[in-house]
Amino acid sequence: MSKNIYLDYAATTPTDKKVLATMMPYFNEKYGNASSLHTLGQEASLAVEEARKKIADFLGAKAQEIIFTGGATESNNLTIKGIVQAYYGSKIKDSKKLPHIITTAFEHHCVLNAVKNLEKKGLIEATFIKPEKDGLIAVEKIKKALQKNTILVSVMYVNNEIGTVQPISKIGQLIKKHNQALAKNQSEILFHTDATQAINYFDCRVNKLGVDLLSLSAHKIYGPKGVGALYIRQGISIETIQDGGGQENGMRSGTTNSPGIIGMGIAIKEIARRKREIENKKMITLRNHLIRRVLKEIPKVKLNGSQIKRSPNNANFSFLNVEGESLIMLLSEQGVMGSTGSACSSASLAPSHVLLSLGYQPEETHGSLRLTLGKQTTKKDIDEAVNKLKKIITQLRKVSGNVLADFYQKK
Amino acid sequence: MSKNIYLDYAATTPTDKKVLATMMPYFNEKYGNASSLHTLGQEASLAVEEARKKIADFLGAKAQEIIFTGGATESNNLTIKGIVQAYYGSKIKDSKKLPHIITTAFEHHCVLNAVKNLEKKGLIEATFIKPEKDGLIAVEKIKKALQKNTILVSVMYVNNEIGTVQPISKIGQLIKKHNQALAKNQSEILFHTDATQAINYFDCRVNKLGVDLLSLSAHKIYGPKGVGALYIRQGISIETIQDGGGQENGMRSGTTNSPGIIGMGIAIKEIARRKREIENKKMITLRNHLIRRVLKEIPKVKLNGSQIKRSPNNANFSFLNVEGESLIMLLSEQGVMGSTGSACSSASLAPSHVLLSLGYQPEETHGSLRLTLGKQTTKKDIDEAVNKLKKIITQLRKVSGNVLADFYQKK
Repeated sequence: MSKNIYLDYAATTPTDKKVLATMMPYFNEKYGNASSLHTLGQEASLAVEEARKKIADFLGAKAQEIIFTGGATESNNLTIKGIVQAYYGSKIKDSKKLPHIITTAFEHHCVLNAVKNLEKKGLIEATFIKPEKDGLIAVEKIKKALQKNTILVSVMYVNNEIGTVQPISKIGQLIKKHNQALAKNQSEILFHTDATQAINYFDCRVNKLGVDLLSLSAHKIYGPKGVGALYIRQGISIETIQDGGGQENGMRSGTTNSPGIIGMGIAIKEIARRKREIENKKMITLRNHLIRRVLKEIPKVKLNGSQIKRSPNNANFSFLNVEGESLIMLLSEQGVMGSTGSACSSASLAPSHVLLSLGYQPEETHGSLRLTLGKQTTKKDIDEAVNKLKKIITQLRKVSGNVLADFYQKK
Repeated sequence: MSKNIYLDYAATTPTDKKVLATMMPYFNEKYGNASSLHTLGQEASLAVEEARKKIADFLGAKAQEIIFTGGATESNNLTIKGIVQAYYGSKIKDSKKLPHIITTAFEHHCVLNAVKNLEKKGLIEATFIKPEKDGLIAVEKIKKALQKNTILVSVMYVNNEIGTVQPISKIGQLIKKHNQALAKNQSEILFHTDATQAINYFDCRVNKLGVDLLSLSAHKIYGPKGVGALYIRQGISIETIQDGGGQENGMRSGTTNSPGIIGMGIAIKEIARRKREIENKKMITLRNHLIRRVLKEIPKVKLNGSQIKRSPNNANFSFLNVEGESLIMLLSEQGVMGSTGSACSSASLAPSHVLLSLGYQPEETHGSLRLTLGKQTTKKDIDEAVNKLKKIITQLRKVSGNVLADFYQKK
């Protein structure tokens, strides 16, 4: 079999060799517990603080505004639940009205389910803003949704399935303006973004974005799995959701994962070193080549989400009359690794909530394919993948039923 | 400087070379997201399931009863909060009485603070059983604390500071008996143990212990940091505390940390292979040699906690008229790595809650030193450490005040 063509970089990335090499000594040489007072512990602690500084620098934040977590899912849970918990413990708590959270209908499930569960428990009110047809959130809709009891707005930077880039800094400005116009006894609205899929490609400086909290993950940026971080602007009222020894300034207890954190620091530094604009352009050219070939050479297919306001590495298609899971399997047999939507939910057979949020009918979401590029992707990879994809689509359409047969023609 | 003598294995262990070697390919060769449907994902998924099986085998449990977490702190938080959450969502909820949790006064802070925070929020009642002077929990005291509204008993297997081994299987029997005598409409009490410090040395088969939930951590057993597990007996009513993509059977969302989990599997397998009884005996001999020398050669010192019902690797002393932090620092300068109590809380200057729970006065807890042995510890290490310790204690006592001067003479 020929070499694998990995086009699932949005699901996870290989750990960079340099990152791994830097992590290695912290497994069994400099293995001290970063909370230990002895030299072996302090050595680990110093390296962890260096990593914290690197992440802070990348975000234009202070080191003490960064806390390490077990991943972006935890960072997002901490944001949503930690802010609601803090609200209930605070003096600003309104006894007549529930606190209100605004998020989008196509957030990652970790944000979506955290918000939905709090809503179900009767602890919050929630508004889920639907994206426009092109996969973009209209700032105007956020503005209309703001209420007197709104405590938090959470909008992802780049959608993990369709790669559309949300107008985070515009939403940030909107909220800033709203907060400035508040009466003295009214509490400010906090603004959070899940930047997991944005870190590789976009400006994530928190002041430019106007965010109060920002989540990120190491394994999406050529760092290790099992580590994430959360930027929390100084002075924000948030409560820990993981009690214990008080690590991470009391915000996230549990033994410091020093190798993982140190790896994350190097991964961020590698991004900071890159000439991102040039690299992004190269990747966009490659990605557009992929999109062009697919749309031109395969009949009855459409690109999901805006092609312009889109992450350089993302292409997401809907193929008429094709079952997504079968497509992934057959592609995989041919050495091409893609996904139907987000990896996190791929075990579930539920239709993509992202595509549904764009106004698709459930039956229109079945034949979706996400191909996401990475540092190692070449034009040759893309061409080989498209060639294989063409054959497989033809093959699948021969055997599949006609359930969706008329959908695209009707459009 | 001579080689370091690491005597802080209870804080963390170096990752075993075999463990690390097994993890390595999962960083940048078999790096797929275990939730991905393609071969690279399924390859990771299979290896994760193998690790799950190894842990299940070790505990005498079923694979589907094991979920992976970010560490024992998370496992313990999930246990406490997940059970209380499930209780509030259930039909058995009593509208007149709060649910009641029994734990001990010397649990790790992650259990203790999780329980205290729920109590503070008015969600539960809690009883904190004090250990006896020798650091052991009296089963009779648990029995007396059981109430009609008790939903959970959580007792650690081995205390992390003083190493005393709790009568888990006896408590398990007590609770089983209590549950069997219940009326039909009464709900059963669940029994949880934090076995983090026990896995290396003691039988952890869940049926023998009679536990419904058991927490463990990889980095205490020569596995990597940032990974833990929780055994949850089939049928137990518990709710996730980390919402998201639904990994770990919906109990713990977040991208699967495949390298970490695979490492944990090998670490457990290595313990299962060992002739533990023989090795424990050897370690006890070494540990007793340490205790004997310290008690004999250094004046005004006592051993904290029972010497008999004690983890093979643990020695914990109180030195009269010595400041623990200074002691750790000076030992560290001499290459000897120890700790005052638990590493997790070493940044705090609060007196050890464990020693306080034994009935010590705050001022009596200052000069505590925990030395914990590991696989690599030799008699030569012990002798060198004791020689250095003797000198440092003398030196510290020369400069320190006489605050505690009479304490031990009065005893």
